[in-house]
Order: sequence, then C-alpha cells, then structure tokens
Amino acid sequence: MTTPRRTSRDIRSESRLDVLHAVLVAGETTRNEVTRVTGLSPSTVATVVGELITEGIVAETKRTAGRVGRPTATLTMNAARGRVVGIDVAETYVRAVLFDAALHQVASVEEPRDEHVLDPGTVLDGIAGALDHVLEQGGVTRDDVLGVGISLPGLVRGTSGTSVVVPHWTWHRVELERLRERVGLPLIVDNPLKVMATAELWLGRGRYCSSMVTINLGTGVGAGIVLEGRILRGATNSAGEWGHSLLVLDGRECRCGRHGCVEAYVGAPGIQQTLREIQPAHPLADLAMQRDVIEAMAEAAARPGADPAVERTIERTAYYLGSALADLVAVINPEVVTLTGWTTWALGEHLLPATRARLVDQAPGRSADDVRLEVSTVRGNMVATGVAAIALERFLTDVGLLTTRIPITL
Amino acid sequence: MTTPRRTSRDIRSESRLDVLHAVLVAGETTRNEVTRVTGLSPSTVATVVGELITEGIVAETKRTAGRVGRPTATLTMNAARGRVVGIDVAETYVRAVLFDAALHQVASVEEPRDEHVLDPGTVLDGIAGALDHVLEQGGVTRDDVLGVGISLPGLVRGTSGTSVVVPHWTWHRVELERLRERVGLPLIVDNPLKVMATAELWLGRGRYCSSMVTINLGTGVGAGIVLEGRILRGATNSAGEWGHSLLVLDGRECRCGRHGCVEAYVGAPGIQQTLREIQPAHPLADLAMQRDVIEAMAEAAARPGADPAVERTIERTAYYLGSALADLVAVINPEVVTLTGWTTWALGEHLLPATRARLVDQAPGRSADDVRLEVSTVRGNMVATGVAAIALERFLTDVGLLTTRIPITL
Repeated sequence: MTTPRRTSRDIRSESRLDVLHAVLVAGETTRNEVTRVTGLSPSTVATVVGELITEGIVAETKRTAGRVGRPTATLTMNAARGRVVGIDVAETYVRAVLFDAALHQVASVEEPRDEHVLDPGTVLDGIAGALDHVLEQGGVTRDDVLGVGISLPGLVRGTSGTSVVVPHWTWHRVELERLRERVGLPLIVDNPLKVMATAELWLGRGRYCSSMVTINLGTGVGAGIVLEGRILRGATNSAGEWGHSLLVLDGRECRCGRHGCVEAYVGAPGIQQTLREIQPAHPLADLAMQRDVIEAMAEAAARPGADPAVERTIERTAYYLGSALADLVAVINPEVVTLTGWTTWALGEHLLPATRARLVDQAPGRSADDVRLEVSTVRGNMVATGVAAIALERFLTDVGLLTTRIPITL
Repeated sequence: MTTPRRTSRDIRSESRLDVLHAVLVAGETTRNEVTRVTGLSPSTVATVVGELITEGIVAETKRTAGRVGRPTATLTMNAARGRVVGIDVAETYVRAVLFDAALHQVASVEEPRDEHVLDPGTVLDGIAGALDHVLEQGGVTRDDVLGVGISLPGLVRGTSGTSVVVPHWTWHRVELERLRERVGLPLIVDNPLKVMATAELWLGRGRYCSSMVTINLGTGVGAGIVLEGRILRGATNSAGEWGHSLLVLDGRECRCGRHGCVEAYVGAPGIQQTLREIQPAHPLADLAMQRDVIEAMAEAAARPGADPAVERTIERTAYYLGSALADLVAVINPEVVTLTGWTTWALGEHLLPATRARLVDQAPGRSADDVRLEVSTVRGNMVATGVAAIALERFLTDVGLLTTRIPITL
C-alpha cells in the first residue's frame, strides 16, 4: 500500500489557504500586499483571488487610487457569504459561538455542563440547545449557516470505526449519527488540540513558521502540532497527546487512569495537587472549582511575598512544564511554541520566565536556544474559533477550493 | 516570513524517489509493476523512468516477452553508474562501506576508535583512513565516486552556524572545512537518526506508510521520524532526539549531563545499570565492553531459567522501552514503529512482546492498538547504507532530479 502524497491540487489548495489567511488577518488588503505577505507569485495571487471572488469568499470592496499608477482594488473577506458556528464542548460548559464568514464573532452563548453527567442524550441536548440559542441570539436562520464545527474533549478517531473517546465516555457511529440528526446542518467534529492548532493556522503564527506547537493548558493539557502549514493528525487523529506522555514513570495518578502523565502535573488539578503537596492546609488546596483556584493563584502571584506557597507552586509548575516542553522540543524541534488555554490566560506571565529557563536547560544539545516560546496571539474562544474555521474549511472543500482532509465530516 | 512550501518540483521529486525505491527494492522490475507498487499513473511512471534512464541512474536491461501482448522491458538500477561511500562514525569504531549505485555493498572496512580520544585531528585521521582503505579494498579510484556520506554521532545543525554537537565534542565550520579537504569528494554529513530513517525510506517500510518512527537502540538511543515520505528534521535538524526526552523527571544521570533521559534506561549502559540495580554482584554488572554485556544477556535469555537477573533486567527494560515508545505514539501517532541498532539485533526478540504489551497499555486512548511495532527489515550496516543513500540523493539533487533538502552539504 502506498500512501496518498501531496498532489498539485494540494499545492493549489495551500496557496488558497495562504491567500485566505492573508486577507483574514489583514482585514483589508490588496493583491500586492497579499503577494508580499504570502511569498506567492503575483500571477498565482491573481488567479487565487479571482477564484475566491467567484465563489463569494473574498469581496473586492472598492478601488483606492495609489500614490503612483493605476487605482488598486481593496480585498476583504466577504462576511455576508454566510454564517458558521463553532461549539466548544468542554468538561464544565458548552459554548456556541456564531461567526460571519470572515470569522468575526456575531453572537455567543455559554451553558454550564455537569461534568459528571456523561450520557450521550444529555450531552447531545446541551449541544443542540446551545446551537439553537446562539442562532436565535444572532437572529439568523439555519439557511444562513454554511457549517457547524464541534470540538469534543477527547480523541476523535477518523479511520475505520469512527469514534470519539473522551475520558469516561465513548461515542461510536450511533451517537455520532444522533448528533448529526440533532444538528441538521453540515457538521464536522474534531479534537480541541487539532482545533486550536487550526486557529493558530488561520489567525495566529502557524502559517509563518515551518513548525509550531500550540500548547493548551486547562483542565486537560495537550499539543497541536503544525508542520509546514499542516496539522499533524497522525494515523488515527491522536497526534499531539503530549498531555498523556510521561513526565514521571510511575508518578502521580492521572485522570486517564495511567500514572505520571504530563497532565497530572500541569493540568489545573495537577497544579492544585502541587500546592497541596507544598502546603496541605492552604486555603486553595481543597477548593472545588478549578478555575477559581487558578485565578486565585494568579492574584496571589501578582503580589510578591504575599503567598510563598503559591509562589513555590508556580515555580514547581514551571519546572514541570519546562521539562515536559523540552521533551516536545527534543522530538519535534519546532521553531515556535505558543501557549494557550485558560490556565495560560491566568498564570502565563508568571510561568513563562522560569518555564523558558528550564526548557533551554533541559532540551538536548542547544536545540531550545532559538525556540520562540510565547503566549498565543489568538484571543477569544480559541476552540470555538478553530472549530468554526474547520467548518469553513469543510465548506470550502465542498465547493472545490480546498483539499483539506477533515477526519470526521458528518 | 513565510516558509518554503512544497512545490510541483517537490512533487516530481517525490515521484522520482518513489520510482527509485520501487526499482531498488525489486532488483528487477517493469514499468507496469512500478505503476502498481507506487500507485503513480502509468504516464508519470513512463516519464520518470525515462528521466532516470537518461541520467544513467536506471538501466533498461532486456526485453522479456510477456505471456500476452508485446515484450516488456526489464528495469534495474544502473549499478555501474558510479560508487558511493557511507561512513559510520560511532563511539567505538569507524566503518566505511563502499556501495555501487544500486546500493549493493562492494567493500567494507571497520577500524576501532578510542571513544576517549576526541580531538578533531584524530577523528579526521580515522575517517580519512577508513575512506582510503575501503576504496583500495574495492579497487576503485576517487574518480568513480559519486559522493561520500558521513554519519556523526551527535546533533548536526544545518542552519546559520553549521555545527556538529556530539557528547563531549563540537565541530564548527573550521573542523568541517578540514573534513571536506581531507575527503576531497562531494560530501554530506548527517546525524545517525536521520540516516537510519533514510535507510527505511530507501530500503525499508518508510515509503509504504503515512508515518513511521525508526528507533535506534545501541549505546545511544533515538528516533528517526518519517511523515508522508519525508524525514522530520525540525528547525535545527535535531528532531527525533527521543533518547533525551524524559522518562523519569530527576531520574538517572544521563551521559548528556541531564537526568532521567530515556537513553539512561534503554541505552546499552542503561540496561547494564538496570542489571546492576537488580543484582549488583552479577558477573555482567561491571563488564567494560557494552556489546559484550548485551550479547551475553541475549545468550542468557535464550536459556529460560538460567539467569533470573538477566530475565528481570530484560523485563524491566521492556517496561521502560514500552513506556517511552508510548510517549512517541502519544505525540506522533505513527502507523509503524521499527526497531534497529545493535541492541535490537541482540535482544530484540526477547524485548518485543513485553514492550508491545506495555506500549499498548500506556499509550493514550487506544492509539497504540493498531501500531505495527516490529524489528526493521533493513539489514547490514543501516547507518552506512542510510548515509550512502543521502550521498546518492545529493548526487541526484546535483543533476536536477531531486529537491531533497540535505542539511550539511560540504
């Protein structure tokens, strides 16, 4: 068996993605500017822009007279082309975000989820309810929607025997079929790591480097890996499960059931565990809500000297995180590592210096010396944005503009 | 800055590599068979074969009458096109192997190296001497040599500030320039992990799967990663340094100076250390020569019950190895993992069942269930073969047939 390799269709598809990215990020731009930013030839840009205008994806809004020579057309995304919805099913909430076709947020709803209720019916109701509410809030009908993307917090397998494996629940074809029926719109399902890497590709740094890893720090942790402008999915769409690689053989028990995983040390419950080990009687040691713990730690860290146990916890977490990132640098050797997720938003600035120092120290040879370690520039709900971008990619694939391989298209 | 993406030239280059691989592995083949094996179109195969014949890389040796229809031409590699040399500079020896252009071995010499003598002059003398001897033994002059490849046991950096970083010695531009002068032939330098992955691509399984990891087990350990038919090199050519990713945070001291690296547990000295921990007074516990230790362990393991300490050491090593492979599966999610290197040749069959069990158990979700874990099918000196293949790739790049990006071309 030989494996499908890239074809010249894929290369055209990648050129279209490069142009879309340039238009999307710039807001307003010109063919010349797109040529400069993408490094594509002027004739390729002219062809691609023409195709995108024909399909109504890009709009030519007005012509401005340049200082020299003939007037120049201004290009924007055609926001009115339709709507896409990104739904972030997390452990503790479901958030649905409505976007226009320029990936600007139009409306957003968030509904709590009981992380202990795992039956498919309840999860499906939550998803369908959030979708209905966000369409209603945005004042749009289903006919306006080009596609829906749903990020599910687990492994989404796209090979034979499509399934979604989340800690403590597994969906097979039956549940996914019910999901498709409940949504009733063109639908894709993916995993948060792939989704966040997609957001970095569409809106962040991913398209400007040969290799990038996006680290999500929240309840769970994981990595989205982007190589040469494409997401590394792996044989069964589970590449990037760095959160369940080992930090300490036979170490702390992880919620995945194994021991010593990175997540057990740098996931939010792991950080709380570290605090508990440092000062068992600390007021935050037994607080039930993870986000409250992390935010209270960020507040304490902002006042140096106020809470030495929190400071030691952050130091220790940076040591764990830097060590675990060094493993990724050893194996992947990326140009850029970006951090995202709610733990990053809260604690990132406190974690970053010591994490970077440990990373450089721990990576083989001098392989981390030139790595750019930074907080992601993509703001808002990165998961909803990323999965909406995949839904939009699926639409663009359906109209023949892209060749993206999307693992689960329902 | 945008990154160079694949172009249609790269796609043609990949088609040529696919065809070369099919001819090389088959020994004798036909255009129809190449079409079947590669999955390329008949017209692409016809064009590519024509180009390879024009450059004297492939030869059309004879026409055999098929049972039905017109006679069919038989294709082989044109072994007489010239010679390539692959030199494996290991910790304890330098081996130079002379190949014909079909990568058949013509002559081989191995000279011992004192692993404690690290000055560049002595290492260069060893390399130059081995090269001279193998050319003499093969009865060829330098004019017959299309290229020389040298594998150096460390990180070979190919970006600004080209350098070779081996544990305890670093070569910069000056030493590499001296190396180039001493060799006096078209020369490439690479790292053993990239070299072994290249051998898997030219002669093994790498070209038949979307993703493959080749694990080297010897004094050092590491991974060569192949994605969609190309070697993952990373930003500074140091991808695959899985041997220096963590197995145990703050664990055993590694010879790289850090603690808890995979290599400190599954490299040959690490395996001996495990034996020493299990039975400090074991006769093999303090033997100086690593290869002797590993071979004696293989002999003991072949007689079940004869040496319980060796059996426990192998069990423990499989536990370490399976755990560390699970980390690679978590991050990369490959289709195939092959094992190679002299520890594999000696202990592989004893290690494999327990390693596989631990890997499946330890990998996230069910991501290792379908992984094919096997001993590499590439025999002989895989390092010399792989680095000779890169030297041949460099020659094919120089004549315009390939677009391979080779990090250090001297």
